[in-house]
Amino acid sequence: MAEKTGTSSGQPIAVLNVHIVHRLPSQSPLLFAAKKQKNLSFETIAQALGREEVAVAALFYGQAKASEEDVKNLAKILDLPEDKLMETEMTGWPDRGRQMEMPPKEPLVYRLFEIVQNYGYAYKAVMNEKFGDGIMSAITFSTKVEREDDEKGTWCKITLRGKWLPYSRF
Amino acid sequence: MAEKTGTSSGQPIAVLNVHIVHRLPSQSPLLFAAKKQKNLSFETIAQALGREEVAVAALFYGQAKASEEDVKNLAKILDLPEDKLMETEMTGWPDRGRQMEMPPKEPLVYRLFEIVQNYGYAYKAVMNEKFGDGIMSAITFSTKVEREDDEKGTWCKITLRGKWLPYSRF
Amino acid sequence: MAEKTGTSSGQPIAVLNVHIVHRLPSQSPLLFAAKKQKNLSFETIAQALGREEVAVAALFYGQAKASEEDVKNLAKILDLPEDKLMETEMTGWPDRGRQMEMPPKEPLVYRLFEIVQNYGYAYKAVMNEKFGDGIMSAITFSTKVEREDDEKGTWCKITLRGKWLPYSRF
Amino acid sequence: MAEKTGTSSGQPIAVLNVHIVHRLPSQSPLLFAAKKQKNLSFETIAQALGREEVAVAALFYGQAKASEEDVKNLAKILDLPEDKLMETEMTGWPDRGRQMEMPPKEPLVYRLFEIVQNYGYAYKAVMNEKFGDGIMSAITFSTKVEREDDEKGTWCKITLRGKWLPYSRF
Amino acid sequence: MAEKTGTSSGQPIAVLNVHIVHRLPSQSPLLFAAKKQKNLSFETIAQALGREEVAVAALFYGQAKASEEDVKNLAKILDLPEDKLMETEMTGWPDRGRQMEMPPKEPLVYRLFEIVQNYGYAYKAVMNEKFGDGIMSAITFSTKVEREDDEKGTWCKITLRGKWLPYSRF
Amino acid sequence: MAEKTGTSSGQPIAVLNVHIVHRLPSQSPLLFAAKKQKNLSFETIAQALGREEVAVAALFYGQAKASEEDVKNLAKILDLPEDKLMETEMTGWPDRGRQMEMPPKEPLVYRLFEIVQNYGYAYKAVMNEKFGDGIMSAITFSTKVEREDDEKGTWCKITLRGKWLPYSRF
Amino acid sequence: MAEKTGTSSGQPIAVLNVHIVHRLPSQSPLLFAAKKQKNLSFETIAQALGREEVAVAALFYGQAKASEEDVKNLAKILDLPEDKLMETEMTGWPDRGRQMEMPPKEPLVYRLFEIVQNYGYAYKAVMNEKFGDGIMSAITFSTKVEREDDEKGTWCKITLRGKWLPYSRF
Amino acid sequence: MAEKTGTSSGQPIAVLNVHIVHRLPSQSPLLFAAKKQKNLSFETIAQALGREEVAVAALFYGQAKASEEDVKNLAKILDLPEDKLMETEMTGWPDRGRQMEMPPKEPLVYRLFEIVQNYGYAYKAVMNEKFGDGIMSAITFSTKVEREDDEKGTWCKITLRGKWLPYSRF
Amino acid sequence: MAEKTGTSSGQPIAVLNVHIVHRLPSQSPLLFAAKKQKNLSFETIAQALGREEVAVAALFYGQAKASEEDVKNLAKILDLPEDKLMETEMTGWPDRGRQMEMPPKEPLVYRLFEIVQNYGYAYKAVMNEKFGDGIMSAITFSTKVEREDDEKGTWCKITLRGKWLPYSRF
Amino acid sequence: MAEKTGTSSGQPIAVLNVHIVHRLPSQSPLLFAAKKQKNLSFETIAQALGREEVAVAALFYGQAKASEEDVKNLAKILDLPEDKLMETEMTGWPDRGRQMEMPPKEPLVYRLFEIVQNYGYAYKAVMNEKFGDGIMSAITFSTKVEREDDEKGTWCKITLRGKWLPYSRF
Repeated sequence: MAEKTGTSSGQPIAVLNVHIVHRLPSQSPLLFAAKKQKNLSFETIAQALGREEVAVAALFYGQAKASEEDVKNLAKILDLPEDKLMETEMTGWPDRGRQMEMPPKEPLVYRLFEIVQNYGYAYKAVMNEKFGDGIMSAITFSTKVEREDDEKGTWCKITLRGKWLPYSRF
Repeated sequence: MAEKTGTSSGQPIAVLNVHIVHRLPSQSPLLFAAKKQKNLSFETIAQALGREEVAVAALFYGQAKASEEDVKNLAKILDLPEDKLMETEMTGWPDRGRQMEMPPKEPLVYRLFEIVQNYGYAYKAVMNEKFGDGIMSAITFSTKVEREDDEKGTWCKITLRGKWLPYSRF
Repeated sequence: MAEKTGTSSGQPIAVLNVHIVHRLPSQSPLLFAAKKQKNLSFETIAQALGREEVAVAALFYGQAKASEEDVKNLAKILDLPEDKLMETEMTGWPDRGRQMEMPPKEPLVYRLFEIVQNYGYAYKAVMNEKFGDGIMSAITFSTKVEREDDEKGTWCKITLRGKWLPYSRF
Repeated sequence: MAEKTGTSSGQPIAVLNVHIVHRLPSQSPLLFAAKKQKNLSFETIAQALGREEVAVAALFYGQAKASEEDVKNLAKILDLPEDKLMETEMTGWPDRGRQMEMPPKEPLVYRLFEIVQNYGYAYKAVMNEKFGDGIMSAITFSTKVEREDDEKGTWCKITLRGKWLPYSRF
Repeated sequence: MAEKTGTSSGQPIAVLNVHIVHRLPSQSPLLFAAKKQKNLSFETIAQALGREEVAVAALFYGQAKASEEDVKNLAKILDLPEDKLMETEMTGWPDRGRQMEMPPKEPLVYRLFEIVQNYGYAYKAVMNEKFGDGIMSAITFSTKVEREDDEKGTWCKITLRGKWLPYSRF
Repeated sequence: MAEKTGTSSGQPIAVLNVHIVHRLPSQSPLLFAAKKQKNLSFETIAQALGREEVAVAALFYGQAKASEEDVKNLAKILDLPEDKLMETEMTGWPDRGRQMEMPPKEPLVYRLFEIVQNYGYAYKAVMNEKFGDGIMSAITFSTKVEREDDEKGTWCKITLRGKWLPYSRF
Repeated sequence: MAEKTGTSSGQPIAVLNVHIVHRLPSQSPLLFAAKKQKNLSFETIAQALGREEVAVAALFYGQAKASEEDVKNLAKILDLPEDKLMETEMTGWPDRGRQMEMPPKEPLVYRLFEIVQNYGYAYKAVMNEKFGDGIMSAITFSTKVEREDDEKGTWCKITLRGKWLPYSRF
Repeated sequence: MAEKTGTSSGQPIAVLNVHIVHRLPSQSPLLFAAKKQKNLSFETIAQALGREEVAVAALFYGQAKASEEDVKNLAKILDLPEDKLMETEMTGWPDRGRQMEMPPKEPLVYRLFEIVQNYGYAYKAVMNEKFGDGIMSAITFSTKVEREDDEKGTWCKITLRGKWLPYSRF
Repeated sequence: MAEKTGTSSGQPIAVLNVHIVHRLPSQSPLLFAAKKQKNLSFETIAQALGREEVAVAALFYGQAKASEEDVKNLAKILDLPEDKLMETEMTGWPDRGRQMEMPPKEPLVYRLFEIVQNYGYAYKAVMNEKFGDGIMSAITFSTKVEREDDEKGTWCKITLRGKWLPYSRF
Repeated sequence: MAEKTGTSSGQPIAVLNVHIVHRLPSQSPLLFAAKKQKNLSFETIAQALGREEVAVAALFYGQAKASEEDVKNLAKILDLPEDKLMETEMTGWPDRGRQMEMPPKEPLVYRLFEIVQNYGYAYKAVMNEKFGDGIMSAITFSTKVEREDDEKGTWCKITLRGKWLPYSRF
């Protein structure tokens, strides 16, 4: 199958850092090695799977569950034997959050943490006034990253969209 | 001045919790008391200031800087003497982040923290492929909260939009 | 109104410990003082409010939101002026979790923490097999405490019941 | 022996995540490998052992002690030589709690942690009124997970049941 | 009532350190002030209450529950009005453990902590061999401090005695 | 040499948990393997060494220093070549405390920690009144575990006995 | 009484920083106020008490116990009524270590902490070879600070001297 | 070369604990193995190098830099090929402090930590009065351990001597 | 005295945030109040004192020691009675570092922390190659902040300059 | 190619400490091994790459991104096959900050941390007055280390230079 190689931005693709491998499930090195071998971006893989880029990257890091169809599509686009993939923990349940130390040391991730730290109460006040007593679900949830270019430069836009869950009265 | 009282959602307005006052600057109790007295939502105040709701809430919690015009507008809409506001730390520089303990205990804020914890590396991989080596600024940055209702229920959408800053080569 | 005073178990009622007051919202001392004054148990108050005991205790500690009707009922059963209650943060939104240091030092609460620490992965494995990839909501959620006496002694039974939320595919 | 394979819910069975193996006793990889090989759910194994699912999962994670009979039954249902099992730490005493970092990063487990954090004092107040000064034992204790389906969706019910231990007077 | 003043060892009595008052319940300053005023040791008070010294000291620090009879006896020996004592949190339930930061900074208490840190696994191994899988209860529990003098000097002997609780099989 | 095998209680003997091996000195796996091989309890080994059970267990975990005579006795009772034992770190000095994370996660050890947390100040007050300003030594120190059975059940008694060290005046 | 005022070095005397007062016992502000009022150095006070400067400073910070004679001498040299001093916690037992956060933020104290951090194992190895298995007591202990001037500049010499305590064999 | 073997105290020499090897540079296992093989004390090696014992022990733990001459002398006294030593990180720069967790768990090291915790402010006050505003350098610094025996027993004396560095005025 | 009011940049002057006052010495509120009253920048005050701006700001936050001449100059430029200033802790010794929680939550300060976190080892390697084994003193040290404007925008330049201190050989 | 070997200062070059390798990406051991083999300083390599020494050291520690040209130049000066370098994570994105524990234990790095801890608020106040509300970027940023020798000794000068980023108004 002839997938588009590299990224549409011209940037190199993301590969796995060896020093976090011990915090990842067994499919992660396998998936990343094939991704590197075939020089595929998450954008390209996401299109093949019909999913969002962030979801696919999360899947590579073991932070999301692959459906059977995802596994088939991954095997195809990455030229990996399906049964080899099935032998990994892909058939298990994600053990989320372990690969990240908090507070994050990585500057890119820290900026997101800082936004929560600085605007946490502001978000809460606005969301309480808009929705009442509850939370935005991080489970019934999707997220995406978009690029916007204008005369002031390049902008990164992250959208978080979750179901509003009101506290039960009991 | 006859502002619209209450929230457009019918929910009660947000007021100040007394047990975090000692972590806030001196204008916070003043602003929140007037907000409560006049029963104004952040939406209403934000319209009067021409700013986003989250920015205005951050301003009430001392997490953002008010311009002189903001102070004037706040004084007017909250029926507060402008010079009394000026005597507070509004004339100083925000000391951001102090009111929030991390990890956050508040479930609403924790969900945002969890999103960073779970998807941190996924965001990084996708953003590196899209933009190269750098970060999304949390300073040249804006954010907003929106409500979307569809047949599946009520959704909360948070948008984070920041300038992309590539690492300098030196 | 002639409420039943004391507890049905013959144990003294729960009152407020002064050294956590600074972590609680402004209605807490007010509510607890009236509860003590009238010698009412959470069981009695819960019946008057039509809510669970744990929910009512959470409400006294500022960990749950009172509806308008709850406020009315509380004012009545506690002989408190309704408007005085309304002046507190009862009209605001709960800032949950702040009164508890983790890990908990209190032995009773520590035992619950220990159950999560010891059986966390076991719960996860069983719940994943039973429900798939997701979580039990702590928001669309109720809980209760029951007493069971048998020949082996007295047993405490805690029930946690939450909506199952499957992870969204995105 | 012809055990029912897979789960009754149709969900995949739980397998072991490689990145927590170093926190588990030596029988864990062995047991999980056989479970995966034979595609058995904790429900099926629990029935064969006459124990609760959570207890059996805890046993797989080294968080509970297997009786000699349990070992025999496990060997049989998992097609493992009994003496090979006996050579592991199954003959030793569980070193509980080590596999879990607190606060838990896993969202499913975090929700249970959050319940303790939010309702800790409320549980204590209610339990003190109901039982007096003491704790609910986490040792003379059992727990189970049940599924309930109704028109509002699927619910997860966790029951914690422990002996009430009053503080000794000394 | 003419109680023996001072300690039998000739050492000054223990009084309250002002800088931990904010971590103690409201009866603590009251009880310690009367103790100081009347120059009574915990030994003397313990005899009057028919309890162990450690239990009585724990009671002064709000770490143990006083029975009604204890309150009466305390009021008598300390010359305090019984109803004044009853107005404090003595009528409430102890919120244990809050007055101690861990690891303890106080050298005397640190030594006890160090014993747990150094011999923790040794105790566990010995207790498992002696009693099976379980714990020594810290609730159905008593403790005392004794002094022994011999030719090698003065020795402090602490006895911890708790019910053995075997893990339930479930 | 024909030592009594197994424990006098009928409980299985304690063996080494593989996941703490990396926190232990090099003699620990050797000693525990021989202990398991010969099915010896700490009670039996302690009698052969003329030491307390807790001391011997501490020695197995590298938390106490073996004398030359201890090494000889250990070699004999465990059927280990003396020089092989001498090649381990038994000839070095114990690096105490490393194998235990604090706060302890193990419920049995946590209960001991909790006793220090709850009764720390009470112990201190009583000990100061009894002995003056100083500490109970954890070095010039011994400890033992005893079992007591009465009509109320089985009790575990731990004795801590240390030299009283008064603060030097300087 | 005409004490020598100021320090022999010509440096200003040490006074109390208001922001640690809440971590100190009640005699600390009293003693420091008189010290400031009379402009006395710890050197001068130490001579009057016949104690080391560090011991006297520790006494001012509530980290050491004053004997009755010390109290008398302090009252005299500081022109304080003896009974006023006795009303403070001077008559109680020091609650050591609470005024210091670890790791220390103060650069002077951090350097001492760093010495322990860097040379900890080196000290241990040397001390084990010199003395055997044990510790240097921090209780049967004295310390002093001396100044040495030579052609290379000014040197600070701290001496720590403690009794060697060998581990008991038990 | 015929060095004196063993220690002058008759105590066994210090050897390396295997469980901290992963925190040490590559020369540490090499040096300690040779030291054990030849049964040399730090005292003997220190004399051969013309350095203090603590400095030499620090050098073995990778906490100090060896000069070229030190390497030659070490090679000679330990019968190690000089070039083999040079291939280790001895030619690099020490990465100090990593082998020690703080607070230290080892009782011997903890006592030193406790001295800093208890007397930190006292040292500071005395040093400020003696030297002015500054610190005692931990870099332009030396330290030694001495043994003193008198009728009261054995004493350990540690001397810390550092250049006094006054804060620059800028 | 007619000082230039305001800042040369046209930005408002820095004033004190009320929520850190409890972490500052007693002169801080006094100095900041006068600074606000007279609308003086640190630049203006620094010129009057002949010191760097950062040093003067540190002095206001109690992080640096004022000389007698500094106090005189401060009194003059701030129109404060000299003896009133002298009554504060200005006559004492700075207790540095207490006002800052680490990691810093303030985004501006966090960026400096992040530079140390990211480039720490790189600085060390370069400095070791340039200077040998030692440190850059933070005591014999000065620092300044400069503004540079070019076609690419506005730049902030921070200079850190400290004496190089080689490790003593001992 | 004949590069200048060794450092211009006569100090040994920096090599890799084995105990942090597990925190570094896969190119780090490769690069450092070649650097050691060819005895090249960061100064020499930096000149070959046309970059700053700190940037190059950061590159060796995986804290900065190498451009394609950098990789070519590195391959040339270090005599490494270019494709071997490309197989490492050099083609991936740096995962910054993981190799450093905070607070840093290394004395050299701690001094930088201490500067942030002590002068954090002072920097902020001065920078706010000079630039307004914002931060100095650590991304659009460069840094260098310089050596200055004068009659008072050797000085280390670190320059941090970052773009000033004003907070967006939104």
